[in-house]
Amino acid sequence: MKKILFATTALIATAGMAAADVRISGYGRFGLDYNENNDRVGNIASGALNGRSETNITSRLRLQFDMSTETDSGVTLGARFRAQAESRDNAPGGAAFNGARFFATYEGFTLQVGNIIGAVENATGLYLETRTAGVGIDGAGFESIVTNVNGESFNWDAYSSAGVGANGVEVLYAAGAFSGHISYSEDNGLPTSASRVAANMAYTFGDWTGAIAVQDSDLAFEDKTFVSISGDLGQFGVRLAYADNDGIDKWGLYGNMDIGSASNILVYVTDEDAVSAADVVAGRNDNRDAIAGSNNREGTGYGIHYSYDLGGGASFEAGIRESSWDNTTVQAGVYFSF
Amino acid sequence: MKKILFATTALIATAGMAAADVRISGYGRFGLDYNENNDRVGNIASGALNGRSETNITSRLRLQFDMSTETDSGVTLGARFRAQAESRDNAPGGAAFNGARFFATYEGFTLQVGNIIGAVENATGLYLETRTAGVGIDGAGFESIVTNVNGESFNWDAYSSAGVGANGVEVLYAAGAFSGHISYSEDNGLPTSASRVAANMAYTFGDWTGAIAVQDSDLAFEDKTFVSISGDLGQFGVRLAYADNDGIDKWGLYGNMDIGSASNILVYVTDEDAVSAADVVAGRNDNRDAIAGSNNREGTGYGIHYSYDLGGGASFEAGIRESSWDNTTVQAGVYFSF
Amino acid sequence: MKKILFATTALIATAGMAAADVRISGYGRFGLDYNENNDRVGNIASGALNGRSETNITSRLRLQFDMSTETDSGVTLGARFRAQAESRDNAPGGAAFNGARFFATYEGFTLQVGNIIGAVENATGLYLETRTAGVGIDGAGFESIVTNVNGESFNWDAYSSAGVGANGVEVLYAAGAFSGHISYSEDNGLPTSASRVAANMAYTFGDWTGAIAVQDSDLAFEDKTFVSISGDLGQFGVRLAYADNDGIDKWGLYGNMDIGSASNILVYVTDEDAVSAADVVAGRNDNRDAIAGSNNREGTGYGIHYSYDLGGGASFEAGIRESSWDNTTVQAGVYFSF
Repeated sequence: MKKILFATTALIATAGMAAADVRISGYGRFGLDYNENNDRVGNIASGALNGRSETNITSRLRLQFDMSTETDSGVTLGARFRAQAESRDNAPGGAAFNGARFFATYEGFTLQVGNIIGAVENATGLYLETRTAGVGIDGAGFESIVTNVNGESFNWDAYSSAGVGANGVEVLYAAGAFSGHISYSEDNGLPTSASRVAANMAYTFGDWTGAIAVQDSDLAFEDKTFVSISGDLGQFGVRLAYADNDGIDKWGLYGNMDIGSASNILVYVTDEDAVSAADVVAGRNDNRDAIAGSNNREGTGYGIHYSYDLGGGASFEAGIRESSWDNTTVQAGVYFSF
Repeated sequence: MKKILFATTALIATAGMAAADVRISGYGRFGLDYNENNDRVGNIASGALNGRSETNITSRLRLQFDMSTETDSGVTLGARFRAQAESRDNAPGGAAFNGARFFATYEGFTLQVGNIIGAVENATGLYLETRTAGVGIDGAGFESIVTNVNGESFNWDAYSSAGVGANGVEVLYAAGAFSGHISYSEDNGLPTSASRVAANMAYTFGDWTGAIAVQDSDLAFEDKTFVSISGDLGQFGVRLAYADNDGIDKWGLYGNMDIGSASNILVYVTDEDAVSAADVVAGRNDNRDAIAGSNNREGTGYGIHYSYDLGGGASFEAGIRESSWDNTTVQAGVYFSF
Repeated sequence: MKKILFATTALIATAGMAAADVRISGYGRFGLDYNENNDRVGNIASGALNGRSETNITSRLRLQFDMSTETDSGVTLGARFRAQAESRDNAPGGAAFNGARFFATYEGFTLQVGNIIGAVENATGLYLETRTAGVGIDGAGFESIVTNVNGESFNWDAYSSAGVGANGVEVLYAAGAFSGHISYSEDNGLPTSASRVAANMAYTFGDWTGAIAVQDSDLAFEDKTFVSISGDLGQFGVRLAYADNDGIDKWGLYGNMDIGSASNILVYVTDEDAVSAADVVAGRNDNRDAIAGSNNREGTGYGIHYSYDLGGGASFEAGIRESSWDNTTVQAGVYFSF
């Protein structure tokens, strides 16, 4: 059997007209997921889950291709392509390539087209400071994010690893301590079209970074305002985040600490307001994420995550999440990059 | 993050029994497509397009794997595998791998099996002398090709980048100024099977190349005869092409010129005959490609395309196509290879 | 066109935290398959095949990505991802990535999760000693395997090249002449769940290897016991295998011989018992694999396979299979690894 070890930093030579390159990278992660909701009688959130084990394998394998070239005038043109297979709640899957994202970069400016990142998704201080960007091995529902609220999770333009994404356009700019990002997508559906416009800005002053992001959407209940302030204090990291999710306020407080040379521990707490009575009347319910009732996500959620660096790009990751709607998730496993 | 730069011309070493290789290549292209047909009331060609913007992103990312090895007797065995994601008319997609093509090459002969090229598809002088083989960024419907006529486009065996292709067999031969190609495919459908047989030949004498291709098909209205004469006159290129598409004649005249060291401009004009009354009676209509009426593609179409080499395997591409059926398309964007 | 030749044994360097690698390998094979069953009137096994040619292209292209890294403590973590396109019986296909398999290896132990191999599938002495692990180019239905019997083929956990697989867990151990393997999978279906547990062991003493495998399944007619004894006698190889397939006994005797420096010829014979009357009453029929009647696989099947090494990792492969249910298959083609 032939064994090909790709060079981590390898030679590049030019033949013919092209001096472009392809970079292959990705990660694998696998572990166990205990989720009490999987075996709960009367679960109406995600269909009938009864009969499914509370504890399942959770896993993901991501294979990513990044291709790029540089023009004579110094513009870098490129694209990203990803295939990602997952297993959650005992539902394993294979993978196809996702929608492509194209880019052109010149000095501090980057134009991206297709499966864009999105300005809310890319806001500084939105996701957890963990390897999975959430708690545990698979993020455990990403309830730690203040823009995910009752009945409305991930209702903003975001890069899709397994789908086609927003098929939008965005411009990113970075210069020194400042970064900014504007994204736009349009869904030309019949009988009407819907568009999303979002923007973010971040500024770093010393150990602290402040950030803001907004989204204006033609779709119901998707207007958002997000702000965060993050401090990187050497061994310690702290962050405060807030979002107004079209009337539902949610706060998050996050702290993490290095322990010794290889460990990190993170804790967070979030607090979410109720859906207003007027919004419920207007059809903003809903029960997509949870057990029953229109306000079941109201209240306090919290989580704790532990990471241990195993070397070689691998780590042990474990976390517990306690939802505001009385659901406990415990996950542990390994994560490795390549 | 690890960065892998694949060597453009890299080392190869033998371990175990295999000295085979895999080559990764492809291209990305993205830009804007203005197509007035997208927002036309009464468009009956491709379903209801009304409500769709006239101007959309058009993009494609192609990732290709070519694997090959050489036997002790000098036969090269190999295969091609491709994953290609596209967005046209605001309908973005991901990608799976297409049907595989296998080959065996010995001296001037190549045998191919599976997702074959096809002898009409591969005829010299069929496609435009542009990077997209058509006008603009995505070919703009490839109306420049004389074998695409009213109601019948791409009705010959051709390599499929996103599907499984013809699952046929073909033999190619080249020696000096001569090249030839015979392809065959069979669709064992019930209750009857249908087969396509095609052949092409080309001969180069000095600056000029003459080519002919024919297809004989069991399916209705697919018999074709194609001839072309192409001249490569240094700074200038000219071509005349003609096809008899089972009774519909179409002519094309093409010219392109290098401008300075980095630019090329191409113009073409085509003229298509009407569908005969007898064929219309026999069920040859049709309106698949256009607005209404059985002969809406009859008449003159033309286009102009401009290309500017940006270096690094990248270029700027722009083009305008005016259809014989009164539809205008304007496209511009960038194209890069890797 | 850029040409990338991946180094068969190439350099590896560390940048940042990751020293992981990705290995690309695979194989292609294509040839002709004559199967008299394809054109048989009254074929009720696989739907109506009538009208399909008896002789078709058979082909497969497999592209495999193996990623791995090693932790500081010497544990190797990794995963396997595969995309495989096939054409059989004139039904060509493309490919998506299959379900991922993850592993952790430490000294002789390997833990695997996801799209596992399975302990019956991995039993020593189960498959033919040919490049395709069966007869001909595509295995010709793998009737040579003693665990494939009337109406029940491949009813054990096995790595799936084109699907998601068992989503199970398994542990493999090897030390000197001994190897062992335990696998487990659970399908949390409603209203009940079904699990498969399997194990195998093998021990090599001198030129001979003895092996045993068992499967205990919640699903009907899936309990299995398999034993084999294999001898590797230099120029000759012999093997005797037996399986009790939940009441259906099947024996297999296999022999192969090197001829000269590049050729090998293999012959086998199998003998399968009838389905018991009680099992037929209990719903164990069945006709999935063949013409008609509940016991149509009872009796003797045999095959012969010839391989010729072409060099460069390529070979010519040909084989004839005569089924116990009176069906003849003849295949020939080429096979190459990369």
